[in-house]
Amino acid sequence: MNLENHLQQWQSQVAELLKKRLPAESSSPHTLHQAMRYGALNGGKRIRPVLVFATGEAFGANKDDLTHPALAVELIHCYSLVHDDLPAMDDDDLRRGKPTCHIQFNEATAILAGDALHTQAFEELSKAKLGERAAPQQLEMIQLLAQASGSLGMGGGQAIDLESTQKSIDLDMLENMHRMKTGALIKVSVLLGALCAGPLQKDERQALEDYADAIGLAFQVKDDILDIESDTETLGKPQGSDVANQKNTYPALLGIDGSRQKLDDLLQLALQALAKLPYNTQILADLAKFIVHRNA
Amino acid sequence: MNLENHLQQWQSQVAELLKKRLPAESSSPHTLHQAMRYGALNGGKRIRPVLVFATGEAFGANKDDLTHPALAVELIHCYSLVHDDLPAMDDDDLRRGKPTCHIQFNEATAILAGDALHTQAFEELSKAKLGERAAPQQLEMIQLLAQASGSLGMGGGQAIDLESTQKSIDLDMLENMHRMKTGALIKVSVLLGALCAGPLQKDERQALEDYADAIGLAFQVKDDILDIESDTETLGKPQGSDVANQKNTYPALLGIDGSRQKLDDLLQLALQALAKLPYNTQILADLAKFIVHRNA
Repeated sequence: MNLENHLQQWQSQVAELLKKRLPAESSSPHTLHQAMRYGALNGGKRIRPVLVFATGEAFGANKDDLTHPALAVELIHCYSLVHDDLPAMDDDDLRRGKPTCHIQFNEATAILAGDALHTQAFEELSKAKLGERAAPQQLEMIQLLAQASGSLGMGGGQAIDLESTQKSIDLDMLENMHRMKTGALIKVSVLLGALCAGPLQKDERQALEDYADAIGLAFQVKDDILDIESDTETLGKPQGSDVANQKNTYPALLGIDGSRQKLDDLLQLALQALAKLPYNTQILADLAKFIVHRNA
Repeated sequence: MNLENHLQQWQSQVAELLKKRLPAESSSPHTLHQAMRYGALNGGKRIRPVLVFATGEAFGANKDDLTHPALAVELIHCYSLVHDDLPAMDDDDLRRGKPTCHIQFNEATAILAGDALHTQAFEELSKAKLGERAAPQQLEMIQLLAQASGSLGMGGGQAIDLESTQKSIDLDMLENMHRMKTGALIKVSVLLGALCAGPLQKDERQALEDYADAIGLAFQVKDDILDIESDTETLGKPQGSDVANQKNTYPALLGIDGSRQKLDDLLQLALQALAKLPYNTQILADLAKFIVHRNA
């Protein structure tokens, strides 16, 4: 099966899982549950759960075991989008061409829906049934997810991003911000997938972290390039919004050619890291290339 | 030791634990960490962690083991206060006589600080070291905390509260709302404390749930009465604000005398439930009386 087929299969699996596991709109409180489903069932590339599935399968994990961490990382991502879009934060009215959660419902509902998606991520991961012997490992997975999401991970990255908008920052600060804001959750997706197959050797873990670190940054560099080179319809959000909002970007710091070179370097780092793993990691290599070559 | 001494000791233990475990203000992102500490280190009665300690000690749990769930339930409570105070929610400027988090910092920081406190609750609980054999139980504790906090618990209760303000609801709806909004977290505090001592018998669990259910509602009935009978200085928030905000309350539905009778009935239910437990539960009985007889 090629990457495109894999992606489609995993993406529809994520959508099915979310539909099944999110509280039904028919259960009270209805509006909150509608808003949770609205915020989570909005399409999207589902990159994080895809990484859970891809890494888990490469490491030989049981496919059913992967559904819990896959859902957990996607629920964290969805909650962060709902909150990041709020007027007090990025103040975005559209996401993937549709009204954002607080526009479709209202601000209070969007805050509560984000909170409830956040909680459900940890509920999902606590429910995973890897068997009694694997319970300590499951606790480690919960701890890793919390660390990746909290003030030293995704949440902290968003705080730094808000503080640094309209200020000029250097490349180190930009990369640190991205490593926290998007990189930490991408890294934990890869780790959770692998951990479903059993404890990790130190060098395996390092190789996975190097791979995840490279594709996490590459994802952001590519996003910044697309904001300049793509168009609004393909992107599903206003083209050129980074420049308009005085966001710090790779093209602003490195130029377009420098950013493309950076993207190439990151892809090579990702592939080199994979080469150290004693597993068939073709699908992870294909995902790295997909991230670097995508059009939207 | 009498209840007052116990309370003081536990309250200062909670404050010390929070000071130690919350990220330092000196670590980046500084403002976010300041806001997290501001939102959590604001005094307060610390009823939820006190219930963890009191129940855990009654059931014979190791005192050190209780610190993780105690912190976890308080972090969930603190995150909910920071978010509930936001302009889009209850729009409160003061909490315990001090500016609320979004007034002291700004809205975006308050949203992110609440989110990060929320995440840290689960991190704390995943870290508890009850030993490898107790790991499945620790997973159950995480799942219980998530269920108590999510859309079918505390978060859902807040959604129902916002929807029902300025509408008239009946007693069943009011109690359902309180059971979700405050009762669920109080109940899980009691259960987590007991679970630190080992698995629970079915009838023990039922007695604990009945006790927690009664004191959770009693806490709310008393709050509603105090809003009418106390004064702004003692309360640390404007007296009479429930009436001013057209909140649904017990006195509005039952009258003051009916509410006092309800409070008495709930206290009796709580004490009857404790009597079914084969442990020394004097401290839990004292806590129930404290909740019913407090002045603020």
